[in-house]
Formats: sequence, C-alpha cells, structure tokens
Amino acid sequence: MRNEVQLIAYADRFGGTLRGLGKLLDGPLAGLFGGVHVLPFFVPYDGADAGYDPVDHLRVDRRLGGWDDLGELGRDRDTVVDLIVNHVSAATAQFREVVEHGDAAPHAGMFLTFGSVFPGGATEEELARIIRPRPGLPFTPMVLGGRHRLVWTTFTARQVDIDVHHPESRAYLTAILRRFAESGVAMVRLDAIGYAVKTPGTSCFLTPETDEFVDRLTAEAHALGLGVLTEVHAPHRYAVELAGRVDRVYDFALAPLILRALLAGDDAPLRRWLATRPHNAVTVLETHDGIAMVDAGPDFFTAGRSLLLSGADLFDLATRISRNSDGTAVNVETPSGGLYRVDCTIYDALARDDRRYLLARLIQFLTPGIPQVYYVGLLAGRNADPPTDADSREINRRRYTEAQVHQALGQPVVRALLRLIRFRNTHPAFAGEFSLPESPPGRLAMSWRAGGDRVHLTADLAGADYTLTYTAGGTDHTVTDVSALPG
Amino acid sequence: MRNEVQLIAYADRFGGTLRGLGKLLDGPLAGLFGGVHVLPFFVPYDGADAGYDPVDHLRVDRRLGGWDDLGELGRDRDTVVDLIVNHVSAATAQFREVVEHGDAAPHAGMFLTFGSVFPGGATEEELARIIRPRPGLPFTPMVLGGRHRLVWTTFTARQVDIDVHHPESRAYLTAILRRFAESGVAMVRLDAIGYAVKTPGTSCFLTPETDEFVDRLTAEAHALGLGVLTEVHAPHRYAVELAGRVDRVYDFALAPLILRALLAGDDAPLRRWLATRPHNAVTVLETHDGIAMVDAGPDFFTAGRSLLLSGADLFDLATRISRNSDGTAVNVETPSGGLYRVDCTIYDALARDDRRYLLARLIQFLTPGIPQVYYVGLLAGRNADPPTDADSREINRRRYTEAQVHQALGQPVVRALLRLIRFRNTHPAFAGEFSLPESPPGRLAMSWRAGGDRVHLTADLAGADYTLTYTAGGTDHTVTDVSALPG
Repeated sequence: MRNEVQLIAYADRFGGTLRGLGKLLDGPLAGLFGGVHVLPFFVPYDGADAGYDPVDHLRVDRRLGGWDDLGELGRDRDTVVDLIVNHVSAATAQFREVVEHGDAAPHAGMFLTFGSVFPGGATEEELARIIRPRPGLPFTPMVLGGRHRLVWTTFTARQVDIDVHHPESRAYLTAILRRFAESGVAMVRLDAIGYAVKTPGTSCFLTPETDEFVDRLTAEAHALGLGVLTEVHAPHRYAVELAGRVDRVYDFALAPLILRALLAGDDAPLRRWLATRPHNAVTVLETHDGIAMVDAGPDFFTAGRSLLLSGADLFDLATRISRNSDGTAVNVETPSGGLYRVDCTIYDALARDDRRYLLARLIQFLTPGIPQVYYVGLLAGRNADPPTDADSREINRRRYTEAQVHQALGQPVVRALLRLIRFRNTHPAFAGEFSLPESPPGRLAMSWRAGGDRVHLTADLAGADYTLTYTAGGTDHTVTDVSALPG
Repeated sequence: MRNEVQLIAYADRFGGTLRGLGKLLDGPLAGLFGGVHVLPFFVPYDGADAGYDPVDHLRVDRRLGGWDDLGELGRDRDTVVDLIVNHVSAATAQFREVVEHGDAAPHAGMFLTFGSVFPGGATEEELARIIRPRPGLPFTPMVLGGRHRLVWTTFTARQVDIDVHHPESRAYLTAILRRFAESGVAMVRLDAIGYAVKTPGTSCFLTPETDEFVDRLTAEAHALGLGVLTEVHAPHRYAVELAGRVDRVYDFALAPLILRALLAGDDAPLRRWLATRPHNAVTVLETHDGIAMVDAGPDFFTAGRSLLLSGADLFDLATRISRNSDGTAVNVETPSGGLYRVDCTIYDALARDDRRYLLARLIQFLTPGIPQVYYVGLLAGRNADPPTDADSREINRRRYTEAQVHQALGQPVVRALLRLIRFRNTHPAFAGEFSLPESPPGRLAMSWRAGGDRVHLTADLAGADYTLTYTAGGTDHTVTDVSALPG
C-alpha cells in the first residue's frame, strides 16, 4: 500500500462512472491520490442504503461500468473496495426465493433468523445484551414460505443479515474476494464487520467469535493478495483491539478529537489519543457516514466513563458544529441516547474557516496512518439540502458535475489542500518515525523523521496558529500557512 | 346515551381549553351535538403522541382546565373520554423510579417487560406470532436500575406498556374510572384495548384473555355508571366479535366502504357490511387517526381473503384519495405491507366535492349507531402542512382560532351539514327500526321507521345523486340535496 493520501468517492456522484472517476484522478487530480476507496458500485449502487444493500455483490452496476473499469482504476493506484459482510438487500434473488418457499428454498441457510441463533428460544437477558446501531431489537417479522418468522436485520428491515458460518455464505464471500483480487483491488474494506457474527449469550458485537471470523477472512484475503481494512464504529477500545488482527483499522476517534481541540480549545484528549492509538490506521476527518462521534466517546456498557470524550463533551461538540454550519448539521444518536455521529461536511463543521480546516487536515496528515480525504471535503463542499425524509447523510453526499469539480478546485482553500496532499505524499520524513514531542497545554507538537529528513509541526490549536518546519534540499524551511508550501 | 350526533375534538385545537370547547358547543354549535368525545386532556395533552402518552392520567392538564370544566361540559351532553389502558409515558414518575432503581422501585410490577410475559424465554415462533401496529418487535432495550432490560412497548419507545394484571395497574385503572365517574363522564373509550393483554404463545391481540379483561373492566365501568366503547383498529371480524361484550364498538370499516362506493362505484362491499355489521356502534368517517383502512381489509393472518375489501382495493382507494387531495394525503402501511390508514381530511379525500361529502355523511348518519363527526370534518377542513418529520396525522389535526371556526361555519357545505346533523338528531324515525331495502347494483336504499315516522334514502353512489324522503307533520317531504332540509 502506497504511503500516500487516498480519496473516498462515489463513482456516480464524482465522475459519473468508474471511468469518469478515473478521468478526474488522471486529469485535474493527477498525482494527488495514491489510492481511492470507491464507495459501493455493485448492483444497485442506488438502493435503500446508497450501495450498502447489494442485490448482486458480484456484479458492477452497468450504469457505472464493469470490473475492467475497476481494474483500470487500480493500475496506477491502490483501490479500496467494500466487502459488505453482514447483510444483503432483501431484494436479492436468493432471499426472494426464501420469502416464497421458506426453508425449502435452496439458499435458505444463507439467511439468519432469530431461531438460527436461538433455536431453543432466548430470554430477556440474552436479547437485551445484543448491541445494535439502531433502536429496538435486530429482528424483522416476515412471512417466509407462509410461516411467520423473525429475520435478523441489524440495520434496516430491507437489509437481511447473512449467516456467515453457513457454507453458502462462505462461498458467497469467497467468490466476492476472488472477484476483487482478479480486478486488482489492493485492500478490502470489511463493512460493519463488528455485527457480522452472532453468538447466543453475547453482545453479538465484536466478540471472540467475531475475532475468529475476521482472522479466517483476513487469511483468505491475504492468500489472494488483498489487504484488509476493518470498519467499526464503536468506542475506541474496539478499534485498538482489532488493530492487532488486520492490516488497517479506521481511526474514527481522531476527527472528533481534532474538532474538540480546534473548536473548544481542549487538546488533552487528542494528545492522549495520539500517544496511544494504533499506527496501522486509515485516518479520516469525515466519510460518506458524516463525522464520527461514538468512536471518541464512552464505552457502550460503561456510560459516563471515557478516556477520551464524555457523552456531554460530544454533545457540546455537536452544538458547536451545528452553530458553525448555521444549524444545517444533523445529530444522529445511539439507541441509548448518546451521540453516534453528526451529518455535516467537515468544511461546514469548521465554519468554513480555511485556516482551521487546513490545520485540521495538517494534523490528520501528520498522524500515523494512511490519510483518506472524502471527495466533498476535498472540494471544501458545504451541506446540501437533503430531500425531505431522506437519509440525513445525504447532507454530505453531494453530486458534482465535471464543471462543478473544476470550479471547486479553483478555490484558494482547495488549492492549499492540494499542496498539502502533495507534501504529505512526497516528503521523505513520512517514511520514517513519528514522535509526539512534549509541549505545553494548548500547543500541539508532532514530528516525523527519516534519517536527516524532518517534518515538525507546532500548533496553537484554539488560535489555529501553527508553524510547519520541514527539510528540503538539505535545509530547513518554515511556513505558517500550508498555502505557502511548494506546489 | 343520547341518540344524537357527537363531536370529536381536541380542546386545545378547537376552543383552546375545556371551557373554550364548551363555549363553542353552547354558542355557534348550540343544539347540534348530543355528545362530545374530548380527545386526551391529561398531563400532558401535547406529549409525543398528542395526549395518548399520559404522564399523569389522573390530572387534567391545567393549561386546558380542570375536572370541574369537564363536569360542566357533560352537564347538557354526553362526554366520551379516553381510558388509555395499554401504556403510559416513559416520563411518568413511577417509570422514572424504575429506570433508576429497577425491580427495587415501588411500582416496578406495573410495567411489562419481555421477561414478565416470557420468564423462561421465547422462541422465534412465539415472538413472530405477536401482532403489532408498527414494524419490528414490541420491545425497547432500556437500562433499568443498571440492568439491560427489554421493556414491552407496543407503540413508540416512549410509551411503556403496563401489566394490566398487576394489582398496582388495576388500582391505577380503577382510580381513573372513578375520577371519570365523579366528573359525569357518560362513556369511557378503551383506547387500543386490543393490545392490552399479553399472553405467551398467542398473538397478544384480542385473545380470549383480552376478552376476559374487557369483561372485568366493563363490569367495573358499569358499576360506576359509565358506558364502554372499545377502540380497535383491525379487520372487521374483531369489532364484530367485541360488539357482544361492550356497549359500543367503533365501526371503522364503514368509511373506506362508503369511499369505495362513492369514488370507485363499487357499492357491493358496503351493502354486505350494512347487512351484517353490529348496530351498537359508533360511526365515523374520520378521526384524529385519519381515515381507517385496515378495518375493511383482509384478516392479518389470511392476507388476500376478505369479505369486504382486498388489499389491492384498499391501495386503489388510497390512490383515489391521494389524487383527490392533490397528493397531500399520506398512506400508512401495516408491518406486513398492507394499508393501515390514510392521513387525510375527509373533505380532501372526497376532492372537496360538497355533494359527495354530504352524501357520505348522509349514509353515515343513516347507518345504525351513534354518528361522530370530527371537528376538522365538521368544518370541511383541508389537509394541513405537517411540520417536517412530524407525525403525518397532523395533516388532519388543524388548530382553529375562534375566528376561523366562525368563518368555516359560514361555508355552504358546512351550513348544509349542520342542517343534516339537526335532522339526524330530531327526526323521530331514527328511534325506530333500520332496514336495507332491496335495490339494484349501483343504487343504495336505507330506511328508518318508527310508527308512522319514516326516513328513506335512495342514492346513485357513483353519481352522488340521491333522494331523501322523510315524514314531517304527517306528510312526506322529498329533498335531493341536504341543504334543502329545514334548518
């Protein structure tokens, strides 16, 4: 995996097709991104959950192109592609057969019901233990082959969970991994992996049995030459624990900690995190799922206690983001009333303050890991008006025409960001060692060194004042604004 | 109970307070309504479910007045008042204690959890059998006294079900009935009674155990001098079965059948219903819960078969209503994808066609039972724009100022409706026998006779042409438009 900045984008919303996305990466964005996470492009890319509810995971939606186009995209850069492990759309051919014929359907075993996990029934205690991202229990009453059943649906009622232990499901996942490997994919993103394995009597979320499954899947991916990135939105200890098992984990806690430091002047939690976090991470400030919050908060089962931010800190941060975005941001809560995420572009979250935004990216890029930049953030996009009743994540999922991309790239803040991306991709110090030098409260220092090559940042976070010192051509250079970096 | 038309109204939205509602009934509406169903006025009247989530069912919300005002309202007319049997607001003092102290709280036994009904656990089959008005299972994970529990919540997560068999709950319900009796209430409306009793291994909806409970509650109400009206939204056979146990049942099937006849020209189901329905009914065209649909449709567990309307008929009707309302009506479906209700004013559902609207009321008023008219329908109100994300029932819950009431009463269609109401209240034939004379398809005939007093309707439903013949002063009179009735 190249140690370079990666882009996160929907092909349909940024380029129009896989080829169109490639044209942007080879054209106006040439040389900027060492990799690209292409958000789901399977059949259909525009279902109920914007591609995360595949009807046919083995086919590229023909409106976006074909597997060859994905292969082409990956020729000169690392492609990161989703393996949606936990569920499929209820509209898949296999599940429609189960609706019609019940257990007599050929693929009935692929789908998880209440009874598959609790054949003898479950008690209140067992069911109450299950962790879920949405309110209520993860079951949807359906009629399958004329019988009233309870289908396991972790997310929406239209996303039916698969029994990952069943041979049919294993074969299904293997076929997808093979297809990815044949198409030159560099890294597979295990979407919502924390929920994939259900074990009676447990929380059914990142249990030892999940670990075993991740290990098996990782071994299989490695054998095919694929790297593995796990996607888990959960209090940070879960990501830390998982980091030892796979190639990369997302560092979703980083964004709220940077925002807390920049917006509330409280940098201690960020320092604590930088000192302890796993380095084999993918860093983001925002994704298609908005700005993460739960990841920097208290543990699900020990509400109130947190090494990083408290529940109240998260709500305080959301209030600041709301104000910065002129009230257009939307909070999404956990079933127990904590903050799960905020739907808002990162540029709006920072009140469209170019200096703060670029400092946030600078801290992200100097944090160990592969930095990813979401296409809306790349273009310093603002919150979109989502259609009424639509998923509030649409706020941060704007669709750009080619002309709009070109126009957005001309903004001074974006031009400065592009310089910063090139700097991160090319400065040799980033191949070396990271350190977190001592500094007084309110000031953050971050350093990279590889032999004689050095990059050093000191920043006054509340004031968004910073000094970036770096070696180039054997001498030290200093800038106090990333737009002064060589372009 | 007076054999006269009753009004259904929110005190806060129609009059402002209980006294304000009384002023309207004694002022511009004097002599029109023999009774009034005052929608919930308890503490608070404006919770998450517009009063159907009481925090204190024993107190009148002081913003609306006090029990004396209710007594005053009932002096010259019959008052119908809700007993919310199934649940209370999660914000009640008793339940907040349970959240804090768990089973050690003094009233812990009042509230139903998964384990109260299934102490040894439940199987998929047992849980899948439970009938519920909303998708998913009726349980909400909550932390009670530090323990993860599953609270039984038939409706929303903020409405916690009570264990109606527990002595505390029995005492609670008795206290409310006593309070009603002391305030001169004529009839208690058992809200959502079908869901009140949960019995393991059953559908938990209108089971023999529910019948027993209804019998006990009815005996208690009768001993206090209160009549009993059951509110059940379900395929019609349930209402028919319940009619033998209580004083009155709602006839919710009537409205979709009248609409089907008037809008689709299919009057056979309406005739079938008129020939078989129970006569101890309260008839409505619409309520605060919109226009009922499920009640005229197929049974929950035998989808497709229906004596009245099929699932497809209901969707066809909804499409006509949507078109008539210029697309402002909102369909609400059952968990299994059938139609539950349509949120729309009755006047908009009939495309604001005065002649059709008045014919619909004429059929309602000539159908055996006590006719109720919802305040928005009384004023020929149109669909309101509900606030985004609000309950779509707000479409049909407009708030009227006194001036708006006066203005609305001046509309020709409303003036004609008032004449029709007076006719229904005063013509002596309605104290006699109802009959359904033979008539060719497409034409409906309905008759009332008491001694020499007669009322006879023949109507061409699709064309909304009708002839109403009635005796007065010993001679026959005929009108072809209810606005020609004596005022």
